[in-house]
Amino acid sequence: MSRAAEAAGRVSEARQWERLMTMARIGAIAGDGVDRACLTELDRQARRVLIEWARAIGLSVSIDEAANLWLRREGTEPGAASVLTGSHMDTQPNGGRFDGIYGVIAGLEALEALEAAGARTRRPIEVVAWTNEEGGRFAPGCMGSMAWSGYRPLASFAEVRDPEGVRFADALAAHLAAEADLPRRALGGAPHAYVEAHIEQGPLLEAEGLDIGVVSGIQGSRWFAVTLSGETAHAGTTPLKLRRDAVQDMVRAIATLNALMEDPEDVLRFTVGRIVVEPNTSNSVADRATFTIDLRHPDAAVLRGKGDAIEATVRGAVRDAGVEVREVFSAMPVAFAPEVREAVQRAAAALGLRSRVMPSGAFHDAQFAAAVCPSGMIFVPCRKGISHNPAEYAEPGWLATGTRVLVHTLAELAGAEAPSSAARSNA
Amino acid sequence: MSRAAEAAGRVSEARQWERLMTMARIGAIAGDGVDRACLTELDRQARRVLIEWARAIGLSVSIDEAANLWLRREGTEPGAASVLTGSHMDTQPNGGRFDGIYGVIAGLEALEALEAAGARTRRPIEVVAWTNEEGGRFAPGCMGSMAWSGYRPLASFAEVRDPEGVRFADALAAHLAAEADLPRRALGGAPHAYVEAHIEQGPLLEAEGLDIGVVSGIQGSRWFAVTLSGETAHAGTTPLKLRRDAVQDMVRAIATLNALMEDPEDVLRFTVGRIVVEPNTSNSVADRATFTIDLRHPDAAVLRGKGDAIEATVRGAVRDAGVEVREVFSAMPVAFAPEVREAVQRAAAALGLRSRVMPSGAFHDAQFAAAVCPSGMIFVPCRKGISHNPAEYAEPGWLATGTRVLVHTLAELAGAEAPSSAARSNA
Repeated sequence: MSRAAEAAGRVSEARQWERLMTMARIGAIAGDGVDRACLTELDRQARRVLIEWARAIGLSVSIDEAANLWLRREGTEPGAASVLTGSHMDTQPNGGRFDGIYGVIAGLEALEALEAAGARTRRPIEVVAWTNEEGGRFAPGCMGSMAWSGYRPLASFAEVRDPEGVRFADALAAHLAAEADLPRRALGGAPHAYVEAHIEQGPLLEAEGLDIGVVSGIQGSRWFAVTLSGETAHAGTTPLKLRRDAVQDMVRAIATLNALMEDPEDVLRFTVGRIVVEPNTSNSVADRATFTIDLRHPDAAVLRGKGDAIEATVRGAVRDAGVEVREVFSAMPVAFAPEVREAVQRAAAALGLRSRVMPSGAFHDAQFAAAVCPSGMIFVPCRKGISHNPAEYAEPGWLATGTRVLVHTLAELAGAEAPSSAARSNA
Repeated sequence: MSRAAEAAGRVSEARQWERLMTMARIGAIAGDGVDRACLTELDRQARRVLIEWARAIGLSVSIDEAANLWLRREGTEPGAASVLTGSHMDTQPNGGRFDGIYGVIAGLEALEALEAAGARTRRPIEVVAWTNEEGGRFAPGCMGSMAWSGYRPLASFAEVRDPEGVRFADALAAHLAAEADLPRRALGGAPHAYVEAHIEQGPLLEAEGLDIGVVSGIQGSRWFAVTLSGETAHAGTTPLKLRRDAVQDMVRAIATLNALMEDPEDVLRFTVGRIVVEPNTSNSVADRATFTIDLRHPDAAVLRGKGDAIEATVRGAVRDAGVEVREVFSAMPVAFAPEVREAVQRAAAALGLRSRVMPSGAFHDAQFAAAVCPSGMIFVPCRKGISHNPAEYAEPGWLATGTRVLVHTLAELAGAEAPSSAARSNA
């Protein structure tokens, strides 16, 4: 048995599940859901629990100025670039127990398994919990990994406000102040590789009876915020022809966008998920309607073409309202590095698992890491593909299998060495 | 000069304007607007100011269990049924300085003018400030006048919640506790007549260069709340064909309702003014969309036909979502009593004013008073017809003219008697 496979055998399904369930209680909502927004007190609680677990197995903990949290296991070769794994700990407002947090807990479990196997690696391995992947509190998501990768400067997010009007910069400063006891590390770096474990968030692996998705890349995303400005008026007295009704123009705009986005192959993803109307009373004509557009496609040309057509389409559709279209997030499609993809494939094969190569429909922090170092992802099945929902579920065994593949992949990428004799005698 | 016309001459344009501007500061918002929701601390502040003014001219103050506030000037004939005037003090969230409050301040000014003229009336005259006319905080509006008139029992509103989740019954109890020093009067009554002064909230009087609208009646209103229940899902991974997207079904429903409500004569009023989406994040498919419908028409048959067709139309339009349609408010069209209408017409004529008979597009508390006693309304112009908006405006002179007509009408309906000699000598 290889050292990597031996370490994979030390993954504890029960310990990992316990930890996931402990995390799920922090921000628990009805129906097994979790609502744990980034940079909140709940987020800090969850991070504190993670830090305790990490320190208990000898990992060193640090934080960068984007509040990305780092857990490090040293390698044997001084100065060697580290291998990174991880994901995020924040959830959607009506989220589940596995999206994001699984990749963090799996990273910790992987280091614990290496430790239990007494396996040293040439390179350090670091688990990172990225700040604000979801974008549910502060849009867009992936702020932590974008800032870390240099894709966008951290300062560019400063003025983003959450629904209560709190600035991102203020929430971040408050968080860093609350975590002032943690050693600070520089934002950025030049790691050897990045590999992230995640639930699929789609139905394919379960439907096909597979254990592992070897992720080939991530489709591109573009997010827009559309604001339509009309004029409020009395619902009883104002003839419809004289109105400048922002809600009615929004209905026209979305209906026309639906036509623009039509895709017989059902590959394009077009979502209007957030709507805010003002003054939002039943007997006043709305003077303002704001809605979001989430557009995704694996083909950069389609993403560019459809996304660039949004503003003109909205302008053509509205009758009366003023139109403002802002692009708030954009990430072109990413193809993962062959060396990481192949390491994951070898891991699955070595452990006798059924796997397939597949793209990711969701975006992930790996998308930004990919610009800095060879990157890849490991998917595990997710019941019925349900995610961003309290009903999100993955069986303990599926999750443990994914972590075994992660251990094997990390061990190979970091250069696993022979276990120490002490660990062998404990085995 | 008649006693009624003499009293009308005592209306002070400046005092009335001052009082309106004092009220406008309680809940003032940007652009000359007012946001003073019913049963809030701001509402109490405004009522306290009104009570002080009323007591200063010798009116007796009382409150009923719906928190309608009453200011009473006694008549000379013991036990005679009173003549009522008044309106409401609450505003829309983004409201103006005149809607509602004008009718209350005009009533107070009318009593002050009668007092200044030394005119006694056979019947008592009472000014009432109805609770929650707007329906902006607790829907539907007109709760105070509906409960007072017996149109709906007060208890039927108990469980209505404001956007913060506060129950109407709790807000009402808190308000009554805060006003416990006021004498309590029974809910209901059998007055002789009701006449309400109000800004037109439409553009006709100003456009036609008229001083006064003699209101013939009020169009009917039906309010509905439509809830569409789909399923939330990940915006990046879920194919559109597999979604149950509540926002998309809402767009289909509103577009189809627009077709149902189409009226080439532009008499029918159809408004979707309030939309709430859940979870309302940009990268999740919405599992719930709630929207309101405000439907109005002067013809009861049209109102019945279109309103009754809403549920089937929504069910026919949606693709995936569960549908719930609740009717939350309904008031059939009302024709005002000829005796009140004619008294208003005589008042306008006696004062040499230009008036016209016209229907009301907005609903008003007078709609419910009309079921209890002969009722009517006096409209004054309203710049460009703008209402439910900070830009709402009526000139001080327009408002004083309306109050003069109100004094004349009240004096006639209440049976004005010769001024006392003391008042005459002060004149």
